[in-house]
Amino acid sequence: MIKAGIIGATGYAGAELVRLLMTHPKAEITAISSVSFEGKAISEVYPSYYQLNDMICEKAEDVVERCDVIFAALPHGLSQELAKTCYDKDKIFIDLGADFRLENEEDYKEWYGGEYSDKELHKNAVYALPEFFRENIKGKKIIANPGCYTTGVPLAIGPAVAKGLVETKGIIADCKSGATGAGRGLSQNTHFTDLNEGFHPYKVGCHRHTPEIEQTLSHLANAPVKITFVPHLLPVNRGILSTVYAPLKDGITEEQIRKVYEDFYADEYFVRVLPKGKTADIHNIKYSNFGDISLHIDTRTNTLIAVSAIDNMVKGAAGQAIQNMNIVFAIEETAGLEIIPPAF
Amino acid sequence: MIKAGIIGATGYAGAELVRLLMTHPKAEITAISSVSFEGKAISEVYPSYYQLNDMICEKAEDVVERCDVIFAALPHGLSQELAKTCYDKDKIFIDLGADFRLENEEDYKEWYGGEYSDKELHKNAVYALPEFFRENIKGKKIIANPGCYTTGVPLAIGPAVAKGLVETKGIIADCKSGATGAGRGLSQNTHFTDLNEGFHPYKVGCHRHTPEIEQTLSHLANAPVKITFVPHLLPVNRGILSTVYAPLKDGITEEQIRKVYEDFYADEYFVRVLPKGKTADIHNIKYSNFGDISLHIDTRTNTLIAVSAIDNMVKGAAGQAIQNMNIVFAIEETAGLEIIPPAF
Amino acid sequence: MIKAGIIGATGYAGAELVRLLMTHPKAEITAISSVSFEGKAISEVYPSYYQLNDMICEKAEDVVERCDVIFAALPHGLSQELAKTCYDKDKIFIDLGADFRLENEEDYKEWYGGEYSDKELHKNAVYALPEFFRENIKGKKIIANPGCYTTGVPLAIGPAVAKGLVETKGIIADCKSGATGAGRGLSQNTHFTDLNEGFHPYKVGCHRHTPEIEQTLSHLANAPVKITFVPHLLPVNRGILSTVYAPLKDGITEEQIRKVYEDFYADEYFVRVLPKGKTADIHNIKYSNFGDISLHIDTRTNTLIAVSAIDNMVKGAAGQAIQNMNIVFAIEETAGLEIIPPAF
Amino acid sequence: MIKAGIIGATGYAGAELVRLLMTHPKAEITAISSVSFEGKAISEVYPSYYQLNDMICEKAEDVVERCDVIFAALPHGLSQELAKTCYDKDKIFIDLGADFRLENEEDYKEWYGGEYSDKELHKNAVYALPEFFRENIKGKKIIANPGCYTTGVPLAIGPAVAKGLVETKGIIADCKSGATGAGRGLSQNTHFTDLNEGFHPYKVGCHRHTPEIEQTLSHLANAPVKITFVPHLLPVNRGILSTVYAPLKDGITEEQIRKVYEDFYADEYFVRVLPKGKTADIHNIKYSNFGDISLHIDTRTNTLIAVSAIDNMVKGAAGQAIQNMNIVFAIEETAGLEIIPPAF
Repeated sequence: MIKAGIIGATGYAGAELVRLLMTHPKAEITAISSVSFEGKAISEVYPSYYQLNDMICEKAEDVVERCDVIFAALPHGLSQELAKTCYDKDKIFIDLGADFRLENEEDYKEWYGGEYSDKELHKNAVYALPEFFRENIKGKKIIANPGCYTTGVPLAIGPAVAKGLVETKGIIADCKSGATGAGRGLSQNTHFTDLNEGFHPYKVGCHRHTPEIEQTLSHLANAPVKITFVPHLLPVNRGILSTVYAPLKDGITEEQIRKVYEDFYADEYFVRVLPKGKTADIHNIKYSNFGDISLHIDTRTNTLIAVSAIDNMVKGAAGQAIQNMNIVFAIEETAGLEIIPPAF
Repeated sequence: MIKAGIIGATGYAGAELVRLLMTHPKAEITAISSVSFEGKAISEVYPSYYQLNDMICEKAEDVVERCDVIFAALPHGLSQELAKTCYDKDKIFIDLGADFRLENEEDYKEWYGGEYSDKELHKNAVYALPEFFRENIKGKKIIANPGCYTTGVPLAIGPAVAKGLVETKGIIADCKSGATGAGRGLSQNTHFTDLNEGFHPYKVGCHRHTPEIEQTLSHLANAPVKITFVPHLLPVNRGILSTVYAPLKDGITEEQIRKVYEDFYADEYFVRVLPKGKTADIHNIKYSNFGDISLHIDTRTNTLIAVSAIDNMVKGAAGQAIQNMNIVFAIEETAGLEIIPPAF
Repeated sequence: MIKAGIIGATGYAGAELVRLLMTHPKAEITAISSVSFEGKAISEVYPSYYQLNDMICEKAEDVVERCDVIFAALPHGLSQELAKTCYDKDKIFIDLGADFRLENEEDYKEWYGGEYSDKELHKNAVYALPEFFRENIKGKKIIANPGCYTTGVPLAIGPAVAKGLVETKGIIADCKSGATGAGRGLSQNTHFTDLNEGFHPYKVGCHRHTPEIEQTLSHLANAPVKITFVPHLLPVNRGILSTVYAPLKDGITEEQIRKVYEDFYADEYFVRVLPKGKTADIHNIKYSNFGDISLHIDTRTNTLIAVSAIDNMVKGAAGQAIQNMNIVFAIEETAGLEIIPPAF
Repeated sequence: MIKAGIIGATGYAGAELVRLLMTHPKAEITAISSVSFEGKAISEVYPSYYQLNDMICEKAEDVVERCDVIFAALPHGLSQELAKTCYDKDKIFIDLGADFRLENEEDYKEWYGGEYSDKELHKNAVYALPEFFRENIKGKKIIANPGCYTTGVPLAIGPAVAKGLVETKGIIADCKSGATGAGRGLSQNTHFTDLNEGFHPYKVGCHRHTPEIEQTLSHLANAPVKITFVPHLLPVNRGILSTVYAPLKDGITEEQIRKVYEDFYADEYFVRVLPKGKTADIHNIKYSNFGDISLHIDTRTNTLIAVSAIDNMVKGAAGQAIQNMNIVFAIEETAGLEIIPPAF
């Protein structure tokens, strides 16, 4: 069994890792840590785990010591030192935070206000969105697990960008996320009476996931891509729906687009390209690692409208992290992730 | 007192007219009709009105006879004959349906599949979005009350289009509507367990409100405007949030945009242009006739992001219809509509 | 116009007072205060009021000075001194907190852990649930406005207790409240992702509203009444549904019960005894001052099941406070409260 | 592998059986049927299953033929003939409907209005609530799977009744169910805009689950038990919270009660007796087969308040049916049901 450790286990991403790893056939949770709840059981914080996982939160260093793979679910800025420690001890480090996602340090400085303390370390890291960059991930030890919007948007528009079906200028990503995306920390925005029966955008045109999405799309396009990205907060617990608009190149038909997507994702267990006439809905993928994609053309304006639905906590965080662990350890990529999304 | 009648009072728009007219200082509900519930009290259908309004649903013709103004909240195709009757009897006819909204009969044929049975009658109708076309409404007898999306999207982007701040090509309206927009009729889409914890687009790029929005924007631009329009269904009861993207013309600054909007809406009681740093939220306008607008610029892609929030049943239907009645009867435009949106 | 002041205007009860008083025909908000937001506009805290009420929060003492009636919406323990000041200045003091609700100081000590600093003052206070104690309220200057559960439960079972239809032993009140009942303050319980899709009881058998409910029922029964009271937290914004069970006395029929309730509430505008076959639903009274009551008998166990629905922020707080103001100032009791509950 | 068939696979209970059986280690879904969707894929009805289970709905008789165990999720009245067919073919029949639940045919006549067509067959059926009647289930061929409320209420109060801690008279079960309990069929009650922000009781004192709960409690008490039972409809998808009130016998302490429950459920994997100070919440068991129980005493009225939370579709329907299958086939009782309830 792979010995897995979770640093930051009492945040939402950490807690979701706990849920998913508990039924993983080839990994077991060996140790967990939490700064806020050190010495307390994870089931004190999340009573749904009571009697199923009553592990006590330890110190991060104890977790590192006893595990083969360390998942870090920490606020940005806190992963670099931990990554170094793991790297030096020859452990696999899977970072659910943002510290290793941006290849260009300037982007990190601009959007996160921090620096890369050890540039060598960053060279050894890999940006791990398996459906696009699987081959790069194999054999790596520092795994930058993508964010939630940064998974959903490329899944929707990536194939069209990669295959040159759309212009790389004028792409708009209008995204809607469930409240777990805002985490466990209390805030007015996620106070029940404020969010319930409410809906609004936030960080309009200035969300930190923007450069990360652009980085992925630029790689796929093999040319610089800039997008307009607006996230909104949905009154649901889970799920991100990304409605992505891109100007179609002249003469591209719906059939061509559909064919490109179906081919692109033909071997991807976790991506479901929906049949013509269906629309992606967060309702159909919640609690699972699936990403549903529906494709629509507005022929009046010659616009591709590609819609993806993922569970922000699974494919957008913990599930994808496990998918990456499976790739790195060269086991079945779907291990522990064959969850049937509930019908209701 | 103005004698008001409601045809189709047991649909959602009709029922909302009942609610609002009950406290109108200068109008009173004289008669209501419903095909499905003829002979039954409105409070049988909507128990929130019990003891406050137990009026019995009559036949449409009886309503017409006894009233000065007739509100029709009917499925499309059913208003034309009724409008004729009212017109001949010199009554004011306010149509909450789509039959008189499109100036171009071809558009009606294409999007609704019907014909204009009496072309003369249509010439006497006016498209009544007061914030843009107030002067046209005065003195008219056939009032085409706009739809919900077709109010929200122009409120958001109209001033920018009218004042030439944005390109008229490449406008995208990504809209999200509460479930009352789908009406009282039962459907799988609005079955609680399907919509709750769900979110999805529908009629992607082919919703019937498209030509109506384009008609308004084309008038404002004084040039043909085509848009890409995608509605989504939100798991809330009320509210439409419209996130509208438009390519900014070169050299336009945020200050200029803000100034244009503030001037444009300076005398509009029902439109609130939010201060810089705020974002429109359906939470803040529900149950009221207000439309909140927030303005955002993505300077990286030179895109205006104008966001509006309205209550689809009030400013997007019944409230606006009463606003139009007030205009036609030359009474205070805000009469009966000075509702404070609840804070939670 | 009555000059009304609100102390603690930025809490939920205070903010709801703002909403309701803004359209009151005979009162106007003269000043408001808030400790947390002193110097800020109420509309900064509640953006739904933007442009409609941008009053600045002042100090409590300034509010007292300039107003005829002072509404205090404060945590318990903070009202007594304020009441004294108002009393000495001959102002009407309406307390939405708990400091003047319990007649027996021992109850206050046991359930709230505080003391009555000025026993004389308490003698001048009146417990103001108008439907039961209207006559006592007239002419009083210190008005103890009931809590939310303590309004809902007596409305449901009060008439049966008063008229001796049920045993006074064995009454059980199972109540379910919307999240506004927990106030504006952030808590894990009201974090969106915790409450949404959740439901649980809290303070089981030990909620502070217990002695207050018992006090009212004991007055009505003219004998000591003890109840079992369990509140639950509902994933909705507003509304309390109280399902109250009481052992029927032998030989009492449903018709007798219905008659008693209809007579009891015959002149009460705000109480609607629903017809046989209907059930109370918080959906039908939200945002209004109405209390709906449905009556059911389990003949198998000879139990009366009386169900009431109120809006916890209106009839359970701010609306009732205004109703009490109207009584004290001898104006129309329904003034400012003739709100039609929305149908959806 | 056990060959499992599902009759009525497109109803909610049937669809949940599909979800759970898909990951069962020792059973496989061999065939499914549906009257409404015969010839269609289950994933057409429930798109969350797309590509994971695209089985076509067949005729019921084809399902029976090819399977070892037949789950029937049908409206009451339709199972008896099917049970006979299965019995004659020596197949295991697990009925999620009500036809075999009531031992006394008179109760069935009174509450369901039907008759037992084959009394012999009923003698071979067993009422299968494993935590109370496990031994009876082994070796049986006709399994009456309990309903949802009829699982939740006995789990909460059963041990107290069985061990004589409470009076058998005066027990009140106030239950709150999520909307999946009302099934896939459209109804006004479960129209999104009616249920959302709403809450109400239904079938007050006359719900069909009443005699079934009483049957179980009477067996446990070894004496006739009558209860008052009131269900309510919650605006959530899943979960039933049952708040059960029972008069404590004199001198029983909280410690005694807690000890009795902990002993009673000591070997029950699916029942979690929560520690003192915790309260059951449907949030913590959703999508799983767990039943959480919290115990509270109101010493002022000497009342036991036992609260249980189950997922109505899992422990209250499909999960318990699989638990029963496991018992009958003598495999690990938890097989296929070791689902970790998500933390949010």
